Amino acid sequence: MSRRTPGRKEWDVRASTLARNTHNKIRSIVENLRVEPNPQKELIALSIGDPTTFGNLNPPEQVLQAVRESVESHSSRGYAPAKGHLEARQAVAEYSAHQGDIEPDDVILSSGASHAIELAISAIADSGQNILIPRPGFMIYQTLSEGLGISIKFYNLLPDEQWKVDIDDLESQIDDDTAAIIVINPSNPCGSVYNKDHLLEILDVAARNHVPIIADEIYEHFVFSGHKFHALSSLSVDVPVLTCSGLTKRFLVPGWRMGWVIIHDRHNILGKEIRNGLSNLASRILGPSVLVQRALPSILKYTPQTFFDDVILFIENQAKLAYEELRRAPGLRPIMPQGAMYMMIEIKMVLFPNITNECQFVERLVKEQSVFCLPGKCFEYPNYMRIVLTVPEAYLREACQRIILFCTEHVDLGDKCKDMESNEVSVPQDIEVS
Amino acid sequence: MSRRTPGRKEWDVRASTLARNTHNKIRSIVENLRVEPNPQKELIALSIGDPTTFGNLNPPEQVLQAVRESVESHSSRGYAPAKGHLEARQAVAEYSAHQGDIEPDDVILSSGASHAIELAISAIADSGQNILIPRPGFMIYQTLSEGLGISIKFYNLLPDEQWKVDIDDLESQIDDDTAAIIVINPSNPCGSVYNKDHLLEILDVAARNHVPIIADEIYEHFVFSGHKFHALSSLSVDVPVLTCSGLTKRFLVPGWRMGWVIIHDRHNILGKEIRNGLSNLASRILGPSVLVQRALPSILKYTPQTFFDDVILFIENQAKLAYEELRRAPGLRPIMPQGAMYMMIEIKMVLFPNITNECQFVERLVKEQSVFCLPGKCFEYPNYMRIVLTVPEAYLREACQRIILFCTEHVDLGDKCKDMESNEVSVPQDIEVS
Repeated sequence: MSRRTPGRKEWDVRASTLARNTHNKIRSIVENLRVEPNPQKELIALSIGDPTTFGNLNPPEQVLQAVRESVESHSSRGYAPAKGHLEARQAVAEYSAHQGDIEPDDVILSSGASHAIELAISAIADSGQNILIPRPGFMIYQTLSEGLGISIKFYNLLPDEQWKVDIDDLESQIDDDTAAIIVINPSNPCGSVYNKDHLLEILDVAARNHVPIIADEIYEHFVFSGHKFHALSSLSVDVPVLTCSGLTKRFLVPGWRMGWVIIHDRHNILGKEIRNGLSNLASRILGPSVLVQRALPSILKYTPQTFFDDVILFIENQAKLAYEELRRAPGLRPIMPQGAMYMMIEIKMVLFPNITNECQFVERLVKEQSVFCLPGKCFEYPNYMRIVLTVPEAYLREACQRIILFCTEHVDLGDKCKDMESNEVSVPQDIEVS
Repeated sequence: MSRRTPGRKEWDVRASTLARNTHNKIRSIVENLRVEPNPQKELIALSIGDPTTFGNLNPPEQVLQAVRESVESHSSRGYAPAKGHLEARQAVAEYSAHQGDIEPDDVILSSGASHAIELAISAIADSGQNILIPRPGFMIYQTLSEGLGISIKFYNLLPDEQWKVDIDDLESQIDDDTAAIIVINPSNPCGSVYNKDHLLEILDVAARNHVPIIADEIYEHFVFSGHKFHALSSLSVDVPVLTCSGLTKRFLVPGWRMGWVIIHDRHNILGKEIRNGLSNLASRILGPSVLVQRALPSILKYTPQTFFDDVILFIENQAKLAYEELRRAPGLRPIMPQGAMYMMIEIKMVLFPNITNECQFVERLVKEQSVFCLPGKCFEYPNYMRIVLTVPEAYLREACQRIILFCTEHVDLGDKCKDMESNEVSVPQDIEVS
C-alpha cells in the first residue's frame, strides 16, 4: 500500500460556500423571536402561509380522484424525463393559455413553485450578478440567490398606492450586472393585484433596459371581486418572461410539490442556451414526483371553476372582516388586499412608545394575546406585520378582537396623537381608547 | 419617469455558468449515438436503469396501500419542514439501523436519491475542490459537481477482482483539494458488492487522509446469494460518512422521488456547520412530496421481506442467465455481478476488426439486432457495455441470443485469436464460429 504524503494532516471539514450562504431568513427571524404564548389563551397563528394548516380549506374531490388513479397506474412509478412527462407539460401549456401561446417544450415541471423559482434564477443569473426583488417581498428569492453569489437589490413598492411598484426606483436599481427583475403578482405579502397599465409600465422599464423578468404568479387567479389578473407574459412585446407557478396554493396542496416554469420568449432572445440551461438544471433532481405528474392533466382539466370561486370568496370575505375589524385597532392601519391570501398592516410605532419595533410588537402580542403575526422584518419592511387570511373565520374574528385589545392597552394617543394629526397620519376616531 | 442611462443597450441574455456546466453526460452520449433499430426485429432496450419500465416488477400492495391512505389524509397536503416530517425521518432512522445509531435529526429527506447526492456534494464540496469517483461509475456525480465548479477525479475499479477499488490508485488521487470520496456499493454499473475487509481498506485510506466519504447505497440490500451487504458507515470508526439512499430501486418506485441523506459522524467532525448546511440546502426546494413522506413510515415498516427476496431472486436468476449465455458470445467477457441490477460486459475490440470502438459496437447491435446496451463511454470506461437485468426473462433470453448472433457474425478469431491467446486473454472455446 502506498504511503504517500496524505492530503490533510487532520480533520477539517467545512461546509461549502453555497451551504453557508443559503439561509431561510424568515425561519431565522422567527426562531429568534421570543414567542411564548399566554397560557390562558389558545394560540392563533396568523403567520403560516399554508392554507391547509387549519383543515378548513381542502382540495376538491376531482384533485384527489386524479391522484387516486395515479397511485393505481403502473405508469406513475418509473422515472420521468427530467423536465417532466410530455402529457403533464402539455396540460400545463393548455391550462396556462392566458399567459400566451405555449408549447409543451416551453414548460419545465418542478418540485413546487420554490423549485421553479430556483430553476429560473439559477439558469439566468450568475455569481457576481444581481436580481431585483420587491420590498416588501417574500424572502425565498434571497434564500435561493445568495448562496450562488447572486446579489439581491430591492425596489420599493408603494403602500399608499396599493403596493404598486415605484417605477422610478425600479429603474434606478438596474445596473450592468442586473440579470433579472422579479415581479410578484398577485403579491405575497401585500395581496396587491396589478392592473394592465401598471404591468405595461414595468415591462417598459425591462424593455428599455433589456432585462428579462421572472414572474412569480403562484397566486394567479387569486383575485378578489372588482379586480382582474393579467399574466405579465401576455402583455410583453419583447421582454422575455420566465413565469413560475404551480398547484400549490390554488389547488390547496402545497405539500405535493408540483410547480412549473414557463418560458415566454416571442423574439427568441433567450435562445437555446437558457432553454437547455433550464433542462440541465432540472436534471439535477430529475423532476417532481411522477405520482402527481400523472395526475396533472386531470387535475388541471377537471377541477371545477366553482371550487376556485368558493375559495376566493372565502378569502375575500376574510379580508373584509379583518380590514373592518383592524381599522378599529388604535395605532394600526390595515391595507385592504386585492388578491392572494395575506394582508399587510402598518403599525404606527410612534403611537406605541413602550414598544421598540414591530418585532417586539409581535412578540408581546403573542405573550399577552397568543396571536402570532409575522413581523415586517421578514419582508425587509419594518413597522408592518403580515397576517394570513386563510384561517377559519371564528379564529380570525377572535384574533382581530385580541389585536384590538392589545393595541388599546398599549397605544398612547396623548401628545403624540396631536403630533401625528399635524403629520396627516390618520388615527382611528371611532373607538374608545382605554 | 426617469430617463437614466439604461443598464444594457441591447438584449444579451446568457445562461449562468451553473446551467451551462450542468450536463447529463449519459443523455448526450445516447443522443449522439445512431440508434436506428432493425425494423424486422422488436427493439429490446437493455439500457434503461428503471426497473419499472417493462411492467414485470411492481411495488408490493403494502406500498400502494400506504400511499392510498396518504392521499385521503388531510395531513399529507400541507408544507413539511424542509428536511422532512419528523415521523418520516424517524422511520428512515429505524429502517437504516444497520448503518449505525441514527437519530431523526441525522436524516434529511430528499427528492429521490439523486437529490440526496446533490445535497451531500453541495454541502461538503466547494468550487475549486474535487471529489473522487469510481471508474467505471455512474455519471450523476459529474452532472451534479461540474456546474458548481467542483472537479471530478477518477479512481479505478479492478474488473478482474470483482470491481474492487484499486486502493493505491484511490490514495494517489487524493490531494489538498479533495473534499470527499464517493463510494458506490453495491455498484452501478458494475454490480459489485464489497466485503467487510475491502470496505475497511477504503475507510483506512479516508481516515489516513482525513477525507469524508459520500456513500451511495441506493442498492443497499440488493445482494445476490452468497454475498452480504455492509453499510460503510457501520464500519467507520472516525471517518464521517454521508449515506445516500431512498425508496427508488428497492421498492420499485423511482418516479416517486423519495430519497434521503443520513449523517454519520460519531466523532462530531462535521459539526454543526455541515448539518446546518444540509438543512439550508434542503430549504431550496422544501423537501420531497408530502404524499410520499406521510406514507413512508408504513412503507418502511410493513413491506414484507418476501417481496425483497423475490425481487432479488429474480434479478440473480437473470444475472445467471445472461452470464451463462453471454459467456458463449465470441469476443465478449461478461463479469458476473454480486448485486444491484446491472452487468458489465467486456468487448474485446481487437476481435472485432471492423468495429472501431464500443460506441460503434452498440450502434451496430441496435441497427442489426435491435438490442440496445449502454456503451462504456457513459461510465468513462471504453471497451465495455452495460446491460440492465430487470427486463422480463423472455426479453433477456432473446436479447442474449441476438447478441451472440451479432458477435458471431462480426468476430474475427483468425490470426488475432492466436495473438490474444499469447496475451492470456480468454477466448470462448465452446461455440462454433461462423
